[in-house]
Amino acid sequence: MSHSTTHQNKGVSVISEAVCQKIVGRDNAFTAVESVFAAMAKNTAYNFPVIREAIGHENALYGFKSGFDRDGMVLGLKSGGYWPGNTEKGLTNHQSTVILFDPDTGKLKSLVGGNYLTAVRTAASSAVSIAHLARKDAKVLGMVGAGHQSTFQLRAALEQRNFEKVVGWNLHADKLSNLAGVCKELNIPFEAVSREELCSQADVIITITSAFESLIDKNWVKPGTHIACMGTDTKGKQEVDAALLATATVFTDELAQSITIGEAQHAIASGLIKEADIVPIGDVINGVKPGRTSDGEITLFDGTGVGLQDLAVASVAAELAEEQGLASYFSL
Amino acid sequence: MSHSTTHQNKGVSVISEAVCQKIVGRDNAFTAVESVFAAMAKNTAYNFPVIREAIGHENALYGFKSGFDRDGMVLGLKSGGYWPGNTEKGLTNHQSTVILFDPDTGKLKSLVGGNYLTAVRTAASSAVSIAHLARKDAKVLGMVGAGHQSTFQLRAALEQRNFEKVVGWNLHADKLSNLAGVCKELNIPFEAVSREELCSQADVIITITSAFESLIDKNWVKPGTHIACMGTDTKGKQEVDAALLATATVFTDELAQSITIGEAQHAIASGLIKEADIVPIGDVINGVKPGRTSDGEITLFDGTGVGLQDLAVASVAAELAEEQGLASYFSL
Repeated sequence: MSHSTTHQNKGVSVISEAVCQKIVGRDNAFTAVESVFAAMAKNTAYNFPVIREAIGHENALYGFKSGFDRDGMVLGLKSGGYWPGNTEKGLTNHQSTVILFDPDTGKLKSLVGGNYLTAVRTAASSAVSIAHLARKDAKVLGMVGAGHQSTFQLRAALEQRNFEKVVGWNLHADKLSNLAGVCKELNIPFEAVSREELCSQADVIITITSAFESLIDKNWVKPGTHIACMGTDTKGKQEVDAALLATATVFTDELAQSITIGEAQHAIASGLIKEADIVPIGDVINGVKPGRTSDGEITLFDGTGVGLQDLAVASVAAELAEEQGLASYFSL
Repeated sequence: MSHSTTHQNKGVSVISEAVCQKIVGRDNAFTAVESVFAAMAKNTAYNFPVIREAIGHENALYGFKSGFDRDGMVLGLKSGGYWPGNTEKGLTNHQSTVILFDPDTGKLKSLVGGNYLTAVRTAASSAVSIAHLARKDAKVLGMVGAGHQSTFQLRAALEQRNFEKVVGWNLHADKLSNLAGVCKELNIPFEAVSREELCSQADVIITITSAFESLIDKNWVKPGTHIACMGTDTKGKQEVDAALLATATVFTDELAQSITIGEAQHAIASGLIKEADIVPIGDVINGVKPGRTSDGEITLFDGTGVGLQDLAVASVAAELAEEQGLASYFSL
C-alpha cells in the first residue's frame, strides 16, 4: 500500500485545517460517510464508547469519539470539545483534532485538523439521509436553525434533489442571513417563515439547533416529508415532537446513540416507539432493509454523529494531502 | 505564562521519544507522579473513564487513558495499545503517544512520544510507594518479574532506600540477566532465587509480571515487608495471594481501578477486604492518612496505572523540551 509506505518513510503526517478545507469537498465527505454507515451496519466498523466530561474549567465540555473501520483500515479518535469562552479570544468554540493510527502496528500515523471536517461530515450525514430516504420529487427544503453549521447542511442537502426553494426559521431571526446568503450565491429563492409554515411548504426538513424542547409539532408535518434531525446529541436535547417518531419511519446512524442521546431518546423513554422500530441507515444503504416505501410515508433520520464519520473524512483528507504533497511530517 | 505564549507563537510542540529519554529523568518522573497522586486524592485531578478495545485486527488491544489535573493545568490523553506482532516488525509491542491540550481553549498543544514515558512513570509509581511506605531500614529488594519494564522499576526503587542486595525471580530464568545487568552497573549484589526464598530475604518486593494467578503465597511474606504489585491492570490478572491483602494494609493509586482491574479485585470479589479498607496513596502523601504505622506491618501498594501519570510526565517533558529548544513545532 503506497499510503502506508509514504507514512513509514516520512513520519507522522499533519494535515492542517487550511489543507482540509482545500481538498475535502462535499463529494468526498458524502462518499466517506455513506461508506462508514454501511460498514457500521455490517459490523465491520464500530464506534468505541464516547468519553464526554465537563472538566470544571472554562465551562468546557471535553471528550473523545473513537472507533475502528476494519474494511477501510481506519483507526483513531477525534478529540476535542466545546469551550464557550473561545469566541472572546478569537477562536472557534468547538475545537477538534482527529488522530489516526496505523491499525497494523498502533503507531501514530496522521494528525488532522478537525474543525472543518466536523462541519462537512455532519452535513454529509443529513445529505446521505436525503439521498436514500427523501422523495425523488422533493422541491422545497426547510431549514430549522441558521447557525454556522446550518450552511454546511444546506449546501450538502441542495445537491441531493432538484430543490426549487428554501424556507428557513431560526430562534434569532437575524441569523437567517446565513441561509439567505448561501441561497443567493446558489441562485435559489429563500423565504423566512414560521415553523408551522415551514412544515406546510417543505418536502425535506433539516433541524440543526441546540434546542431542549420540540420545535416541530407532529400535526404540522406533511405526509411524504423527510426530516433529518441533526441537533440532538445529548441527553435532554430535543428538536421535534416525540409523537412524530411514532408516525414516521425512523432511521439513524447509530442505534445505541439514537435511543440514549439522539432525537429518539424521548419517544423511547415514553414508550411511543421501541428500539426495534429504528432502522440503521446502513441497512438501507446495503439494501438489507427498505428505505421509503411510499410517497405518503414520513421518514425521519436521527443523526447523532459518530466518531467513525470523523475518522472516515480525516482518512480521506490524509490520503489526498499525502498524494498531493500538501501534508507536512514530523517524527516521534 | 511563558509556556503558553511559546505555544501560541510556535504552534503545536512535538517531543520525540529520543528527546523524552534525554530530558525526563527518574527524579522528574518521581516528582510528577507523586504530585498527581496527591492531586487525585484531593479531587483536583481526575481520570476520565478508560477506553480499552480488542479491535479484532492483529490481536491488538487499543485504547485511551485520559484526564484533567486542574492544579497542574494538564489536560489530555495517552493513546495507544498493545500490538503483539510488532516485535517481528522491529517495533515495540506497546505503542503510546501522549496528546496534550490547552485547558483554557481546547486547542491541541503538544504531542509527546509515550513509550519511554510509560516505562518511567510506571517505575516512579512503585518508587513513590516505597518512599512513603517501606521501612527506612530496608536492605534487600526483591524483584518478581524480569522483563523490559522490570529494569525501570529496579533503578527507581534502588534510589529510595539504602539497599544492599537485590534478589530476583522470573518465570523464564534467562531473562534475569536484565536485572543482573542493572545491578552490576550499579555495583549492587544480585542473586537469582526461588519465589519463597525471595520473600524470606526481601524487605521490599516489586511484582511486575503478566501473571494470571498468584505468584506469592501469603505465608512467605515477612512481617514489615512492603510489596508493590505493579503488573495487574486487567480483570483476571493476579500476582499475589488474595489473602495477603487481608493481612496487609492496602494502598493504591486509584481506588476505582484497584477494586475492578487491579490486584485488589480478587480480595474484593471474595469478600476478604472491603473498598473502605484501601487507602489512596495520595492521602498518605497529603498527610491526611497514615502510611506505615509499625515496623511489623505489611504494606501493599496496588499500582494500577492511571492516565494522569502519563499526562504528568508528558507535561514535564513538553515544558523542558520547549525551554531547552528540543521541541519541534507544527501548525494545524
